[in-house]
Amino acid sequence: MKVSDLGEFGLIELLANIVDKTKNPQNTSWQRLRIGIGDDAAVWQCSSPVQLATTDSLVQDTHFDLDITGWWELGWKAIAVNLSDIAAMGGIPEYALISLALPGELEADCISSLYQGMVQIANQFGIAIAGGNIASASKVTITVTILGSLEDKSALTRSAAMPGDQIAVTGYPGLSAAGLRMLKQKLNFDAETTKLLKQAHLQPMPRVKEGQILLRQGVRTAIDVSDGLIADLTHVCKASRVSARIKENLIPVHPAAQANFKADCQQLALTGGEDYELLFTASSQVITRVKQAIPCPVTVIGEIIEGLPGQVTLVDTDGKSIPWQQAGWEHFKSEA
Amino acid sequence: MKVSDLGEFGLIELLANIVDKTKNPQNTSWQRLRIGIGDDAAVWQCSSPVQLATTDSLVQDTHFDLDITGWWELGWKAIAVNLSDIAAMGGIPEYALISLALPGELEADCISSLYQGMVQIANQFGIAIAGGNIASASKVTITVTILGSLEDKSALTRSAAMPGDQIAVTGYPGLSAAGLRMLKQKLNFDAETTKLLKQAHLQPMPRVKEGQILLRQGVRTAIDVSDGLIADLTHVCKASRVSARIKENLIPVHPAAQANFKADCQQLALTGGEDYELLFTASSQVITRVKQAIPCPVTVIGEIIEGLPGQVTLVDTDGKSIPWQQAGWEHFKSEA
Repeated sequence: MKVSDLGEFGLIELLANIVDKTKNPQNTSWQRLRIGIGDDAAVWQCSSPVQLATTDSLVQDTHFDLDITGWWELGWKAIAVNLSDIAAMGGIPEYALISLALPGELEADCISSLYQGMVQIANQFGIAIAGGNIASASKVTITVTILGSLEDKSALTRSAAMPGDQIAVTGYPGLSAAGLRMLKQKLNFDAETTKLLKQAHLQPMPRVKEGQILLRQGVRTAIDVSDGLIADLTHVCKASRVSARIKENLIPVHPAAQANFKADCQQLALTGGEDYELLFTASSQVITRVKQAIPCPVTVIGEIIEGLPGQVTLVDTDGKSIPWQQAGWEHFKSEA
Repeated sequence: MKVSDLGEFGLIELLANIVDKTKNPQNTSWQRLRIGIGDDAAVWQCSSPVQLATTDSLVQDTHFDLDITGWWELGWKAIAVNLSDIAAMGGIPEYALISLALPGELEADCISSLYQGMVQIANQFGIAIAGGNIASASKVTITVTILGSLEDKSALTRSAAMPGDQIAVTGYPGLSAAGLRMLKQKLNFDAETTKLLKQAHLQPMPRVKEGQILLRQGVRTAIDVSDGLIADLTHVCKASRVSARIKENLIPVHPAAQANFKADCQQLALTGGEDYELLFTASSQVITRVKQAIPCPVTVIGEIIEGLPGQVTLVDTDGKSIPWQQAGWEHFKSEA
């Protein structure tokens, strides 16, 4: 059945049913929700006096290609990219609002599958889907807003990096870009690598718990790696009015990327976007504490220095500056 | 200069500057905002333990036609339609997040103008633009999320209508649809009518204060008239599991619509969407109090009765049922 056969209100009913039947009612966000899907706005009882909110869209043919992205994964990812922004503040995600613009000729089953992916990640991260909106459009745009709270008044921000801070990153940036290249170019790798890279690109795991640990351990500066490692470090340096020096040999490259992308693997790690790892800065003492407290790899890749706001220098083992190609994803610029 | 010449980050800087230079810093939402545009999420100190949120999109060629809609008006309207949802809950709007999807070949001046319209209505209603997102797309989609609070735990909902309640509406539904018809068909009216109808369609005034007054005076059931009077009354009746009977001769039709649209004016009032008036139900005593407290026209148009959930009957002065054409706007259904 097509979306246009169901109509706007039939589709809302279908999606509200999916949310209702598959939600985890034990989740405290559901328990604090007073009014959810089906009214003019969502209403809930806050868990903390400090609230936070972020919004991000996935646009067909800009962010995703329906030839290589399944609907379930698209639902997962639309929520994941927003959770990652909450993670980059050290926040606790609580509610999601979903705004869909889509063509009437789509199969309603596709949108059911999209919502099932959303509910899956919502349950996994303890958030309640509290409302949204549906409109007809010639292409698919999924806009998610996530609302949440902070344990106390402090948050991780982009603007608190200080000269002398070490720069560190969680996990292995570049895996999502490697996955995208594998899917687009139909590259054949072993089953384990294929699964790893596909998951990195289509079903990223936002570092929500890790962001909260950073904040608790005394980190004050973080961003999520959505545009690319160097691009996102540039955002931090601009906002903090500092420069950064990162060392080529310290950039963590996943063995699977190294084995399969050879010479390109470092470029993928430096400029590939959509990793949703956390990039952060702090004193070496704080970073030592973080490494003990956090359940994922953390690698120090360089340091914050005084200098031109936003300047990021990549150096080799001798300290010599290395030029790099194109510094990550930016909308309205053509891809390299 | 085109959006693609500025690039994503140049455009964000331009828009952040517009917001910063034209905001009203006296507004308490700005004073409680800890982190605004430019970080991964917005952070604020809540004013009340009960929060509310709504999201709505305007999609090019579905909701608006750039041939008849100016960018400033589009900015105003994108915020207004969301404020109207907050109004329909009796809420206090506080923060807005703006997600834009747009083509790189657009002039950056258009987007500046869009944002100026947004800031104008934001200042007028005491909300702070706290963040957002920009992405490239082949057509323009503007998704706004408004966050707010409630004075206490109660809210206006769609689901509290009771048999015996009177049904009332603020203002004159149908003016927005009349304005759309005037603009599309290039109809010529006198200057005053032209201004009234243009404003009703392009620069609607959400009934935010009025929604708060309804709640304070004891109203429990409301919806905003976005899909059309009968369609929205149907939503209330479905959610409340009741029927409604409304009287043809009681429907408030604005004299300008009556004079210029003759036989069609009632059809416009019953099924024209995008009025953003408030439709509500309450006992006659409560409605008497509301009429004294509210600074806009309020007209009783019928009553809630027991019956099939969602059934709305239009009757003439003899109580005889009158059929009506097409019950308002629904996405994915073709227009009548």
